[in-house]
Amino acid sequence: MKAEIYVTCKQGILDPEGNAVRKALNSIGFDAVGSVRFGKYIEMEFADVDKAEAEKLTEEACRKLLANQNTETYRFEIVD
Amino acid sequence: MKAEIYVTCKQGILDPEGNAVRKALNSIGFDAVGSVRFGKYIEMEFADVDKAEAEKLTEEACRKLLANQNTETYRFEIVD
Repeated sequence: MKAEIYVTCKQGILDPEGNAVRKALNSIGFDAVGSVRFGKYIEMEFADVDKAEAEKLTEEACRKLLANQNTETYRFEIVD
Repeated sequence: MKAEIYVTCKQGILDPEGNAVRKALNSIGFDAVGSVRFGKYIEMEFADVDKAEAEKLTEEACRKLLANQNTETYRFEIVD
């Protein structure tokens, strides 16, 4: 069982990495690129847990460690 | 049109951030967490391009800027 977790800045929170990537892309000719949001992608493998337990653990791991809930938002999927 | 891009370390390449997250999770009681891979998640908005063009631009942006092809692998989806 594996969790795929996406952590991004909340709307309205400054995203300096995203802005830097957008400027870099624009400067090398990618004019069609508008806004860029830059976040974290985390794959977490579980041993010997079922899907419900994996969901519970992932939710808890996001709240306790992986995401800063003041500035970041997260979503995840549990896959086999 | 929006690209959702996932960049992770290639298999066999040391992933220090992933290891640090795994150790941190294990140390606060998440014993069921085995390996962790830590990567980047990038959302890129396009203005006035169709899906085929967005795919071409995203592929090119990954090769030219977003992923280090020596050590990283990427995949992406184009969504509306």
